[in-house]
Amino acid sequence: MAGEERAKAGRRPRAETPKGFRDYFGAEVTGRKAMLDAVAAVYHGHGFEPLETSAVETVEALGRFLPDVDRPNAGVFAWQDEDGDWLALRYDLTAPLARVAAQHRADLPVPYRRYAMGPVWRNEKPGPGRFRQFWQCDADTVGAASVAADAEIVAMTAEALEAAGIARGDYRLRINNRKILNGVMEAAGLYDPAAPDRHEAGRGVVLRAIDKLDRLGEVGVRALLGAGREDGSGDFTAGAGLAAGQADIVMAFLGARGADAAATLRGLAALVRGSATGAEGVAELEEIAALLEASGIGPERAEIDPSVVRGLGYYTGPVYEAELTFEVADEAGRPRRFGSVAGGGRYDDLVRRFTGQAVPATGVSIGVDRLHAALAARGAAAAAAAAAGPVVVTVMERGRIAESFAMATELRAAGIRAEVYLGNPRNFGNQLRYADRRAAPVAVIEGPDEAARGAVTLKDLALGARLATAASLAEWKARPAQREVARADLVAAVRAMLAGG
Amino acid sequence: MAGEERAKAGRRPRAETPKGFRDYFGAEVTGRKAMLDAVAAVYHGHGFEPLETSAVETVEALGRFLPDVDRPNAGVFAWQDEDGDWLALRYDLTAPLARVAAQHRADLPVPYRRYAMGPVWRNEKPGPGRFRQFWQCDADTVGAASVAADAEIVAMTAEALEAAGIARGDYRLRINNRKILNGVMEAAGLYDPAAPDRHEAGRGVVLRAIDKLDRLGEVGVRALLGAGREDGSGDFTAGAGLAAGQADIVMAFLGARGADAAATLRGLAALVRGSATGAEGVAELEEIAALLEASGIGPERAEIDPSVVRGLGYYTGPVYEAELTFEVADEAGRPRRFGSVAGGGRYDDLVRRFTGQAVPATGVSIGVDRLHAALAARGAAAAAAAAAGPVVVTVMERGRIAESFAMATELRAAGIRAEVYLGNPRNFGNQLRYADRRAAPVAVIEGPDEAARGAVTLKDLALGARLATAASLAEWKARPAQREVARADLVAAVRAMLAGG
Repeated sequence: MAGEERAKAGRRPRAETPKGFRDYFGAEVTGRKAMLDAVAAVYHGHGFEPLETSAVETVEALGRFLPDVDRPNAGVFAWQDEDGDWLALRYDLTAPLARVAAQHRADLPVPYRRYAMGPVWRNEKPGPGRFRQFWQCDADTVGAASVAADAEIVAMTAEALEAAGIARGDYRLRINNRKILNGVMEAAGLYDPAAPDRHEAGRGVVLRAIDKLDRLGEVGVRALLGAGREDGSGDFTAGAGLAAGQADIVMAFLGARGADAAATLRGLAALVRGSATGAEGVAELEEIAALLEASGIGPERAEIDPSVVRGLGYYTGPVYEAELTFEVADEAGRPRRFGSVAGGGRYDDLVRRFTGQAVPATGVSIGVDRLHAALAARGAAAAAAAAAGPVVVTVMERGRIAESFAMATELRAAGIRAEVYLGNPRNFGNQLRYADRRAAPVAVIEGPDEAARGAVTLKDLALGARLATAASLAEWKARPAQREVARADLVAAVRAMLAGG
Repeated sequence: MAGEERAKAGRRPRAETPKGFRDYFGAEVTGRKAMLDAVAAVYHGHGFEPLETSAVETVEALGRFLPDVDRPNAGVFAWQDEDGDWLALRYDLTAPLARVAAQHRADLPVPYRRYAMGPVWRNEKPGPGRFRQFWQCDADTVGAASVAADAEIVAMTAEALEAAGIARGDYRLRINNRKILNGVMEAAGLYDPAAPDRHEAGRGVVLRAIDKLDRLGEVGVRALLGAGREDGSGDFTAGAGLAAGQADIVMAFLGARGADAAATLRGLAALVRGSATGAEGVAELEEIAALLEASGIGPERAEIDPSVVRGLGYYTGPVYEAELTFEVADEAGRPRRFGSVAGGGRYDDLVRRFTGQAVPATGVSIGVDRLHAALAARGAAAAAAAAAGPVVVTVMERGRIAESFAMATELRAAGIRAEVYLGNPRNFGNQLRYADRRAAPVAVIEGPDEAARGAVTLKDLALGARLATAASLAEWKARPAQREVARADLVAAVRAMLAGG
């Protein structure tokens, strides 16, 4: 083995993850898993089926990255196999879904509802908090032209966020429709249904401006719709160059949110008057609003919001976004909103590249890491409880380890997480330091004297830690952190100690 | 987009997984997940912590594959990044553990118990049932020299198999110790503690022969220990060339299993008399046997078995293997044993390539796909229940879809998996065909007439399927597969139908 030879030669391999990759330990893994399990249960309850595609796809099937033939791995991790075919790690869960929908179209139900959870890989410059492998969690319906599919995804996303642990009121789903945006563009002279490709660049500038409403406010957006805008540092962003009348229409659209869905929809209908596309978009949102109501999703959970854009190109109908509405303190102690944790919409060109036939589809993607971070910020106590270590059964002398195994077995049979110290038992201090490192709530100690008396000693490490930082002398005496109990009472006494009794 | 241009030019990308890769659908995903969740709960209960390493490692850290500099991706999927470093997909979960144990050694508890579950990738020729991406499920203890760690892994594996759904009696763990094998080799003149590398090739032939006991029987193994063996097809396998006296010692070792652990250990101790290594191995197995007893693991779950070898090289102490003892019918209807579903042992050189320091470790790996296949073969009924589809709420006319959403919402609120048909409602036959394809147990139908009467029709599709294949006319009449119920009784009536009432 070359590695072995290197070690012998003194040049050892570096023990490092590749740049931009990381490992996840303990509660990071279980916390994310619990969150995704709760989300999956909601998706499953709605009749969605799990799909696990391979991590590796042909570059041909992934598609997007083909143009640069000399360097087909720009953006993705790719390599050439023995036959000369280029393979790559998937960069999202939608491209594999497109491939599956085409490859298995004879066997899948129509519509096909599926959810998928797993890592994706991006060959991009890593940065703080930006990794080259991260998780996505998607739910999509393929083959349903009706916006009932969109309504279902929106309702399901609300339920999924609550199941994951985000309280009602701490999130809001906002829904818009690209067709209404197109209708507004048409009214403003930026979209011609007879020549949909005209003004495409201009519409892009307008969409990007709308997307910045949260950050720049109305004045900033209006500047970007017109001549352009200089930011605080003196950088100038070119504007869309709209005339004042055109910009008025776009700004009216952004302000169209009414007191309730019906009022918003009336305002939007008035704005897109004369645009068949716009009218269709309003009718679709009306249907979605009715279906959300039938699904028990009130306006405090999901609402029509004309300011939702969701990127460029791609989407063709309803778009939706889930944002968290509570604030958390950032590293500097400043209040900060978590913002968007999920988003999606209708994209009707999924399978065409493979089969030549357009297949309607709609879906949502949850930002797994962002949602997990939000849950941690929101429920620090719950997260800490999930991270609580096992009861550590110590070993006083090597010959008595079987008795320690028996005690750990008893504790586990009672549903208590427990482990035996497996290092060298000679130095007892090491065992207690180990228990500390494992965040053990209780240490069990049974020396030969205690064994002869039929007793064990329990050390309440959780209480000990609290007392060490906060107790008065009286409390310290009243609640000793160490206690001898009868061996027969081991399980009951540990259970009482875990309950703080 | 090039893909788009291709489609226009008539040359479409192929919708195919790369050769040797596959997709997993529905119950394949949920069934495996349920199994791994049960296993993880056992590991967690024993104080093991989850670890999720990145799928991508540096080739340098993986090590094994470095020698072929011109083609470093033999066996692994590898590629060169922008900086010229070679990266690769992990080929197992042990190599990343070695890297983590070295990289994070200052932060991990000692001993470090961890479990890991996830896909691994092999750049090997695919074949029937052999894929280039498959799941592994490992539990290892790093940094514990005591064989108490091995005993714990064995006991935990037994509990994990039972938690996954393998009944006690349907599996057996077999435990051996490489040190006893070395002691036997020493007694047979094939191992010299003063020159451990001597006779290495000869020992390899002997180990491979022992490993074939199940298949070839004692006569076949003895031939391989001596001059060699010709199989039925005339192929000749060269033997180890042992003298009769040497072969007698090895064969006595294979036959050393006694009526119970104590008898087996007495027999082994007699065989390795004079070998310090052998005596150490026997003492270790004695300790493991005592700890298994303390853990409530009787001989019907785990036993000492001298015929367990577990591959070559690598292992340095106790080795263990879990095999399933029941038979299933293969494709041709012949009874077949499932055989080994998990195995592992002690390997004490894990971290040395990185740090220069030897770190003792022991661990088990469960063959996820094999165990899942065994569970499916054993519990076909349970697997089918897990695969049962959702209640499908049909849509009689487009304008009434909100009512269908409300019914599905009510059913889900009662814990019943339910979905609304989202295709074009015009052709009702399509909806029932869809329900059939989804393995729906019940279809809910509410036309305008029924709605006016405050009623809904429930179609018992599960019962319908049973009646269609097996019912007499009297049964058919007595248990109509379709029933009108009051709209207010929807949930109760569906629940009764699901319960077969």
